[in-house]
Amino acid sequence: MRVALDLLGGDAAPGPVVDGALLVLAEQPDVDLVLVGPPEVAARLPVDGERLTVVPATEVVGMDEEPARAVRAKRDATVRVCARLVRDGSADAMVSLGSTGATLAAAVLTLHRLKGVSRPPLAAVVPALAGPVVFLDAGATVEASPELLASFALVGAAYAAARGVERPRVGLLTVGEEAGKGDLARKAAHEALAALPVDFVGNVEGRDVPAGGRADVVVTDGFTGNVLAKGLEAAAGTVTATVRAALASREDVPDDVLDAVEAATGHMSPEVLGGAVLLGVRGVVVVGHGASTARGVASCVRAAADAARSDLVGRTARALEALVPAVSQPAVSQPAVSQSQGGPA
Amino acid sequence: MRVALDLLGGDAAPGPVVDGALLVLAEQPDVDLVLVGPPEVAARLPVDGERLTVVPATEVVGMDEEPARAVRAKRDATVRVCARLVRDGSADAMVSLGSTGATLAAAVLTLHRLKGVSRPPLAAVVPALAGPVVFLDAGATVEASPELLASFALVGAAYAAARGVERPRVGLLTVGEEAGKGDLARKAAHEALAALPVDFVGNVEGRDVPAGGRADVVVTDGFTGNVLAKGLEAAAGTVTATVRAALASREDVPDDVLDAVEAATGHMSPEVLGGAVLLGVRGVVVVGHGASTARGVASCVRAAADAARSDLVGRTARALEALVPAVSQPAVSQPAVSQSQGGPA
Repeated sequence: MRVALDLLGGDAAPGPVVDGALLVLAEQPDVDLVLVGPPEVAARLPVDGERLTVVPATEVVGMDEEPARAVRAKRDATVRVCARLVRDGSADAMVSLGSTGATLAAAVLTLHRLKGVSRPPLAAVVPALAGPVVFLDAGATVEASPELLASFALVGAAYAAARGVERPRVGLLTVGEEAGKGDLARKAAHEALAALPVDFVGNVEGRDVPAGGRADVVVTDGFTGNVLAKGLEAAAGTVTATVRAALASREDVPDDVLDAVEAATGHMSPEVLGGAVLLGVRGVVVVGHGASTARGVASCVRAAADAARSDLVGRTARALEALVPAVSQPAVSQPAVSQSQGGPA
Repeated sequence: MRVALDLLGGDAAPGPVVDGALLVLAEQPDVDLVLVGPPEVAARLPVDGERLTVVPATEVVGMDEEPARAVRAKRDATVRVCARLVRDGSADAMVSLGSTGATLAAAVLTLHRLKGVSRPPLAAVVPALAGPVVFLDAGATVEASPELLASFALVGAAYAAARGVERPRVGLLTVGEEAGKGDLARKAAHEALAALPVDFVGNVEGRDVPAGGRADVVVTDGFTGNVLAKGLEAAAGTVTATVRAALASREDVPDDVLDAVEAATGHMSPEVLGGAVLLGVRGVVVVGHGASTARGVASCVRAAADAARSDLVGRTARALEALVPAVSQPAVSQPAVSQSQGGPA
């Protein structure tokens, strides 16, 4: 597997990205990297033309730029070059820690969307107590209409099916189990989701994401999703740190018990979780935290390589195609030109 | 301290409420209870006219009713009777596990709002790693305008000040640190909060609620707030359960290490946390989870008694009065008649 890595994405780029590339070389022998960025940055790496190649690109989309406009204007932006490599088959997947909006814009512009996807959501797989929960949108689109939430439900169900869940249960994230609970967008979305050809289990609550068990796919807008995803990751770290501190102060606790605590909860850390997948584009696109360390970068690369190896996009596309013909609402199957565009109820 | 307890509030009422009252009698000798509900339910308790009295009330506002309308229509609803007891001084505080909307409506109708509060938010105090974070609105109002978020910022800062934080730092919960990050409501709210006479530290993210350290007060709408609060509570339980399972399987870990894990993380549990306080009404109102066990009910009663004992409402009111005259926006200082009503920018 060959993964294109955006050297200029991330709050502290290129430092952690370069260090992450070194980790990949050391720890993931079956993964080759295409580094996309300024050649002088890549020069600090052991580029060998085999496992490590460089594709020059010097432009970057800043966190303060309007992403879609900036991506269109910057043909040489690292995220656009990464997406072109995936489109042309020169890379099997791409990873960026830069602006989510820029990655979304580059992916849509260059890789195009799957049928039935108006705005590709970011999907995180939460290691819930009762089993993995596909959680989307984790932050690609901050405003969401009921039609968009319905489209997330479809692509999320297809993704869960591609991951091997036989008949994924889909829940709508809101503030109470009763059908009327939530804001106006949720009330309308409840009806829209109930009409889809998926196993809609109704409303779920914040606790159902880390606890799991009620739904395999939890659907929300990218604002709420981003807030909750970041909150859950930090909560795992907070609780683990609290437990470690409590145990470390005791003399009768063997040192390797602390390691066991680390091992038990490590998979909940954003450093190990491996980023989120941009769903519904024709290519594997993994978005990592802007604040990722080298370890986090390496986890994103591993997730991207795994997704490419298992043809997750192809399988998601086929699962989605099985769902989309059954959908009658045009708003779900046609690309929306604007996120505020209303669709038929 | 005398706390009015709504016998009919909660998903499984009156069972856990009755059991919670028994726990209070056994464990909180300085707290007396006024049980508000059907006398036949209270008959199962050792009513003695001293520590335990009963005020009959038979109506209840269901989770499926429009709260404000139902509360107005049901003069004998348990939440309204509780609020009257607080207003008349027959109780120092009230606790309900019933519909948040009904408790909000009863509190506003009977206890009235503090000056500067249009819609009272529900404030949770999150036991963050770096110190307590006042987090609001945890679920009282699911739609929020920028003006309402600004009013939450004021009352949240006043509450933190009343809790002893000298110059509370206030953050706006959104999806990125940069000022432009977030949905339209957040972008407008950022400007509104920046204009307030509080120490506004700008945007904070989901991770800043369980981690703490960046803001003493985190402001969001009741939809996002409820989702995140429930998610964080469940995440704490999930991580703790994972650690316990990992340690319990090892022979070399002393049993009391598991107790230490429990002790270290127990304060993060909703059963111990003790509900959320409805801020900005002229009385102590604590709202517990509908799914609370007896232990959760007892924690809510303890939180209510503590708040009343320390005159938290009086101190919050005085802190708020010091802030409100400095506010020029009419939308913040005048009650909104509708949650969708727009105010001057």
